[in-house]
Amino acid sequence: MQSVLTILNAIESGETTPRAAIARSLGAIADKDAAIGAFATVADRKTALAAAAGAKGPLAGIAVGVKDIIDTYDMPTGMGSPIYAGNRPPADAALVAMLRARGAVIAGKTVATEFAFLQPATTVNPHNPAHTPGGSSSGSAAAVAAGMVPVAIGTQTGGSIIRPAAYCGVAGYKPSFRLAPLVGAKTFSWSLDTAGFFAATAADIAAFVARLTGRSLDVEPIDPATLRIGIYKTSVWDQADADTRAALALAAERMAASGATLVEIDEPVELAAGREAHSTIQNFEAGIALGFEYAHHRDRMSDILRTTLEQGRAITPDAYDVARSIARRARHATGELFQAVDVILTPSVTGAAPRGLSSTGSPIFNKLWTLTGNPCVNVPGIANAAGLPVGVQVLARFGRDRLALSAASWLESLLASAEIAP
Amino acid sequence: MQSVLTILNAIESGETTPRAAIARSLGAIADKDAAIGAFATVADRKTALAAAAGAKGPLAGIAVGVKDIIDTYDMPTGMGSPIYAGNRPPADAALVAMLRARGAVIAGKTVATEFAFLQPATTVNPHNPAHTPGGSSSGSAAAVAAGMVPVAIGTQTGGSIIRPAAYCGVAGYKPSFRLAPLVGAKTFSWSLDTAGFFAATAADIAAFVARLTGRSLDVEPIDPATLRIGIYKTSVWDQADADTRAALALAAERMAASGATLVEIDEPVELAAGREAHSTIQNFEAGIALGFEYAHHRDRMSDILRTTLEQGRAITPDAYDVARSIARRARHATGELFQAVDVILTPSVTGAAPRGLSSTGSPIFNKLWTLTGNPCVNVPGIANAAGLPVGVQVLARFGRDRLALSAASWLESLLASAEIAP
Repeated sequence: MQSVLTILNAIESGETTPRAAIARSLGAIADKDAAIGAFATVADRKTALAAAAGAKGPLAGIAVGVKDIIDTYDMPTGMGSPIYAGNRPPADAALVAMLRARGAVIAGKTVATEFAFLQPATTVNPHNPAHTPGGSSSGSAAAVAAGMVPVAIGTQTGGSIIRPAAYCGVAGYKPSFRLAPLVGAKTFSWSLDTAGFFAATAADIAAFVARLTGRSLDVEPIDPATLRIGIYKTSVWDQADADTRAALALAAERMAASGATLVEIDEPVELAAGREAHSTIQNFEAGIALGFEYAHHRDRMSDILRTTLEQGRAITPDAYDVARSIARRARHATGELFQAVDVILTPSVTGAAPRGLSSTGSPIFNKLWTLTGNPCVNVPGIANAAGLPVGVQVLARFGRDRLALSAASWLESLLASAEIAP
Repeated sequence: MQSVLTILNAIESGETTPRAAIARSLGAIADKDAAIGAFATVADRKTALAAAAGAKGPLAGIAVGVKDIIDTYDMPTGMGSPIYAGNRPPADAALVAMLRARGAVIAGKTVATEFAFLQPATTVNPHNPAHTPGGSSSGSAAAVAAGMVPVAIGTQTGGSIIRPAAYCGVAGYKPSFRLAPLVGAKTFSWSLDTAGFFAATAADIAAFVARLTGRSLDVEPIDPATLRIGIYKTSVWDQADADTRAALALAAERMAASGATLVEIDEPVELAAGREAHSTIQNFEAGIALGFEYAHHRDRMSDILRTTLEQGRAITPDAYDVARSIARRARHATGELFQAVDVILTPSVTGAAPRGLSSTGSPIFNKLWTLTGNPCVNVPGIANAAGLPVGVQVLARFGRDRLALSAASWLESLLASAEIAP
């Protein structure tokens, strides 16, 4: 994989230039993407290299893949739907404008599932093309995993960052709700949609997002002796397969062996209720947010999207308000959780990437944390007997993004290409 | 003015048809708008009448003006800026799709100030064309006040619904934050932007929004004997001129005379701090939200917008986070306020509409409540010695929109075209 930190260091030391770094990413896309299908659109080479040559700012030399539901003024934004084929927005999304202002170059638009929901796209998993890369940020995760770009942008409404990151074996970071702006991204659910990031490691993501936002996010050393880690198996643990169970056990064992304190946490009822309320909020809002597309183009929607919008449109405002109250209580309950522990370790996914492209896998271990808005980081580094990645995620209190990234980076170093027994 | 309730009753009783009602609104626009300048675009008459003839749903026969920062697929959306002249969005905003799905007809796009900020547009006040209609929902308020449409949609980030409603002498309703969706509206500040409504009276607005959203919002009778009203002069009372002071006193006097309990409230420090924090949040977010326009088109921005974006881009994430903490505490403090009172009465504006079109007036009495997200209703009915409207607003606890609308409607009936002494 391409590393943000390696590229930035090489540019700083004069070993390479922003233009050469961008050329390398574009070359990797040209070499590899035919087999992966991570990109819906690739930037024009001449334009991108000209931008790279003139790039100034802390992200000069970094090529970024941008999920194709996020507007770009110079490339189509297709939303993963035939309804928006060839769509040309009048402006860049806020996040894209920030990227360019810091010197990054948009290498292309990465494949998204239809409006970032569940209907699979055609991108394959770089670890095994017979398996799904996950969704909905399918192309973003695969583009980083295949070494085509050092960073990609995605969004998560259910599990669309953490799940594809886990399936593709890359670091994935869903920030605290609203840390990264979503202006100019297609809305599915305004209470849940969250912009996030993919890179090779947590330290790469942290360095990138720190330079992008001006926030103090670079990873810090962790002192295991002072770290209390909540092992959070959730009330849906029965959905975790043997690989996920072994991965969580391995990560916990390594953390304990290094001196950290582990605390088994039973899921509070408020959080179990939050997981249940997620769909009500998501589907009610999607029914409104995609009201135009439903009215004019529902014959060009997948069955799963159309059915979900119809379910959402049948939810009453009262039922939606009840779900929002449950969500508020769940957010409050996470605050109490983080009085007893500093970070939480929990599965990213039910298991390794499923075989086939007919499903993007289950977001069951993600959607609660999208609802609560806590920062989550998928930690790569564990593989199952078939060589497929199995992710675990580290969470922290709302706003403690630097701790989540730092603890994830520390766990990565403890795992260092661990394999779980078959 | 045109009344939603009168039109819906006439259609229900068979006195008129949706098509005739829409034709009447379009006729009023054709007659009056040359003098007012409330519309940036008027709907094609044939298309609108065809839509009205086929309209089904609870809002059939209601012509709506839509602020020109809210996307429509069949009319340009100019954002009040030359940068977006002729801009044709690919889809309706969520609110517009909801309107059409309920049978309403979009009569046209109402003039907005540049990106809904402070640079005045050319709409005039229907009560006196030498005076501003207020902003940024200038055309929406003026279109209703001049009797061209029964309803118009606007947005408020500082005071852009309540202020123009007060200056134009119409009912204006800023709902609880996020009650009305903003998907497909141009973002200025995602933490503050709030969609809202203008109509002749609070009862008209309530009937309209109830039918639009499926929420129980129709105004209910108020029993003054059980109503505790907080008289909230704020810590910026020195900015209220003689007209505003007299209007607030008159409203309070009539409410007391009818048997309600008045409670003078000193502004809690948390709320005074919230008013101060508003600009930090607004400008930081605007600097990000309009990042593309700043990068590519700042030579086509007004000075006040460009300067504000530059101020916003200079705000650090730390300063922004501090302002967000202050906002959270302010929201919490409003919850305590509403333990002692049921509704709050406070000025809508510093005075009647200023003379001239060089300023849209001050949002000082509005921006705190945009920050807290409480429902606010401007109550028309008081005029100063020059015949210009002077507004007062009624607020309720977050989520108690029906109470805010009901209390506003009751106060309207108590005022019934009151004039304050010169």
